Amino acid sequence: MMEEKEETQETENQEILQDLSEQGKTAELVEMFEELPTMDVAEFMEEKSPEEIIDYLKKLDIEDQGRIFSDFTLELQIKLFHSLDRRKFAHIFGQMFSDIRADLYQELTKEEQIELLPYLDKKVREDVIILSAYPPETAGGIMNTDFATIFADMTAAESLAKIRKDAPSKDMIYYIYVVDHSMVMKGLVTLKDLVMSEPQTRVTEMLNEFFVYAEVNEDRESVAQKIEKYDLVAMPVLNSLHQLVGIVSHEEAIDIIRKEETEDLEKFMGIMPSEDDEDYMSTSPFQHFKKRVVWLVSLAAIGIISGMIINEYQSILESFIILAMYMPMMAATGGNTGSQAATVVIRALSLGEIEDNDWSKIVMKEVKISFMLSVCVALLTYLKIAFLSFHAFLPAGFTMEHIGGVISLAIAIQVMTSAVIGAGLPLIVRRMGGDPAVVASPAITTIVDITGLFIYFTVASMILGIS
Amino acid sequence: MMEEKEETQETENQEILQDLSEQGKTAELVEMFEELPTMDVAEFMEEKSPEEIIDYLKKLDIEDQGRIFSDFTLELQIKLFHSLDRRKFAHIFGQMFSDIRADLYQELTKEEQIELLPYLDKKVREDVIILSAYPPETAGGIMNTDFATIFADMTAAESLAKIRKDAPSKDMIYYIYVVDHSMVMKGLVTLKDLVMSEPQTRVTEMLNEFFVYAEVNEDRESVAQKIEKYDLVAMPVLNSLHQLVGIVSHEEAIDIIRKEETEDLEKFMGIMPSEDDEDYMSTSPFQHFKKRVVWLVSLAAIGIISGMIINEYQSILESFIILAMYMPMMAATGGNTGSQAATVVIRALSLGEIEDNDWSKIVMKEVKISFMLSVCVALLTYLKIAFLSFHAFLPAGFTMEHIGGVISLAIAIQVMTSAVIGAGLPLIVRRMGGDPAVVASPAITTIVDITGLFIYFTVASMILGIS
Repeated sequence: MMEEKEETQETENQEILQDLSEQGKTAELVEMFEELPTMDVAEFMEEKSPEEIIDYLKKLDIEDQGRIFSDFTLELQIKLFHSLDRRKFAHIFGQMFSDIRADLYQELTKEEQIELLPYLDKKVREDVIILSAYPPETAGGIMNTDFATIFADMTAAESLAKIRKDAPSKDMIYYIYVVDHSMVMKGLVTLKDLVMSEPQTRVTEMLNEFFVYAEVNEDRESVAQKIEKYDLVAMPVLNSLHQLVGIVSHEEAIDIIRKEETEDLEKFMGIMPSEDDEDYMSTSPFQHFKKRVVWLVSLAAIGIISGMIINEYQSILESFIILAMYMPMMAATGGNTGSQAATVVIRALSLGEIEDNDWSKIVMKEVKISFMLSVCVALLTYLKIAFLSFHAFLPAGFTMEHIGGVISLAIAIQVMTSAVIGAGLPLIVRRMGGDPAVVASPAITTIVDITGLFIYFTVASMILGIS
Repeated sequence: MMEEKEETQETENQEILQDLSEQGKTAELVEMFEELPTMDVAEFMEEKSPEEIIDYLKKLDIEDQGRIFSDFTLELQIKLFHSLDRRKFAHIFGQMFSDIRADLYQELTKEEQIELLPYLDKKVREDVIILSAYPPETAGGIMNTDFATIFADMTAAESLAKIRKDAPSKDMIYYIYVVDHSMVMKGLVTLKDLVMSEPQTRVTEMLNEFFVYAEVNEDRESVAQKIEKYDLVAMPVLNSLHQLVGIVSHEEAIDIIRKEETEDLEKFMGIMPSEDDEDYMSTSPFQHFKKRVVWLVSLAAIGIISGMIINEYQSILESFIILAMYMPMMAATGGNTGSQAATVVIRALSLGEIEDNDWSKIVMKEVKISFMLSVCVALLTYLKIAFLSFHAFLPAGFTMEHIGGVISLAIAIQVMTSAVIGAGLPLIVRRMGGDPAVVASPAITTIVDITGLFIYFTVASMILGIS
């Protein structure tokens, strides 16, 4: 969790810009726009009106305009699209990072897209149309086309010359991709390899043929995992003919990991993930409502079973009023234990720390853990009864020790079964090919509510010899 | 959440190695060790005995040995430390990635460290000691020292010559750091800048002076956030004299994000984070127990308040048996609503989508969302009562419609207050300078259990005119 903290450096950069702007030193301000990280410049401009932003942008060279524009929020990009004339916009658009550009393009209406296309260079137009064609959940949907290529029969010196010629606008030239004349990928070299080699060395001599790549239809999560596993700065994306069609950069991987973690957390807490990745504020109350209502109403519907169990054992409750007093604690403790166990197991599955065929080991481990937990909770319960309920009314023939023992034992059994249910359900769902995160914590709470009441009254009626 | 899927490419690489190994083609196998990504080679070797691994490593040049060794799990690294003689180990150790090496060093006992040190080169020895000195939660604790430096008065050609001389072993030379003769950092250039420039261009002409950096004592989470925000491949780490002491690479950022997300999720589910980042299986049951017991027992202790409320309204429960039947559903629905609201708010805070001073907007939004939810849940409740409890016994003078209305109204109020409590508590904690994730979902469940029962019986006694 981000803690509130003074981020001195970023604040400093913002202040530099703010001061120059207030003092009206436009020349110096524009110079700083060129010097500072584009993200800081973008954040500074975002506070201004569209007219001011356009004024600022005009003073920069077109390449910087494209970079800063790429760092704006999508909302602002769309607003500026509407404020700028098409020709001017098309010019900036052509200089944006290709993946961000394609995302923006997809947010425009069909009419706006058709309006914009004639103003674009042929290369940009094709790039945008191709990148927009892939589903956003796939490697194709997150890749960009800012990569540099060379041929295997070149020397290091020839390769560097080609990169100098092709790549001035390309940001990511850490890896240089080696392709044949049909763009079929043969391997890669790093820029470092090229720089370190003797100028006459052939590319074939330093070629990495066993490179890690993504297929264009591959799930974006799998792409992020490979980038993470192999510590890559970027990963090539190939189509079915093994042609190089794009690259996915490490920053996309971080982005995907964040999104997937949010999705998992929401699933786990009984919130349906939405298709768009909108943030809290820009999601309407009705959208929020839709994401939450299904689980909430379903579980409320199932919750009646708990009520029926209470109804069934009405007579015991009437004779032993004290049982009603400890009933909510028992339900809640079961829910908490089950959720805790489910959380660690689901997280461990997700990080690949455990496999679903470890289930017997995991269940044994949870039995041990929950045994210790149940001893503590049972002890607490017994002490509570001794201190708080000493004078409670009991039917003739029953002592407080007797009742205290029954309630504590029931809670101990509840803690152990809840832990096993909480740990076991995600494993079962995974085994059946599902996503363990859907065994939402609210679902586990509702289930162990039911099992808990059943345990409670069964133990009570058996030991107390009533029904 | 990772879904089980055929990861064809990685499996393929493993099979290549497996086949060659089974056919005893050692020469070809060693050749593939050099060709394939080190992570795949490391995973293949991890399945073998320490003796076999050592045999394999011996056949590779020392640089590859260091890289593959760096990709082994920490457990295996320690096992191999015990299997290899000190001199041989020191040789491989000298070639490991500096950050991974420092992590391994810290896992050795004091005696083992002292035993190892004399075998190390002076440079490696100093490097290890310095990197091990920083707390693991800081920039210093996660940085490595594999960076390349140049001086500002050099030309592009001279810079490339210095990098060629210094950096053959350094992996991360995407950014080249410009320092003065006391290692005070002046700025950075990218390798691309150097390659693209005319050979006689001075470094000063392409210098980025406004670079983003971390202070050596800066929290690792803040470092990861900056790397993410500015899309960096690596970030320089400076000490208080602005000397360059290390770099943090993008792969560390991903690692930190994963760890922090796990910590947040655990906190949120009432599990105390542990200091070490051990995985599920290697954490002992007693360790797991310790992480869970505090919240569980505390909440069970507080849970008695719910019991006391029930006790207080015993007489109403006895007259209106039907109230007991819908009591668990009401408590559970409140808990679920509160947890859902807390989840989205905490996540949005953590991603920086909302600030704690947006609280009035957030609460208004939750009021709207929960109003819609409460209508659905109340309707469901009324229908349930109409269908299931039509024949329930009621005291004279009360109709089923009457009771159904009371219970549905109480549940509707419960849903709305729970959503506001769930969304509001994290905001309050954040405002007071705490980590919103500690307002754990189990805590919210317990709180709304209490408020819920109170609402339930207050509404019932007021409307039904009983006490």
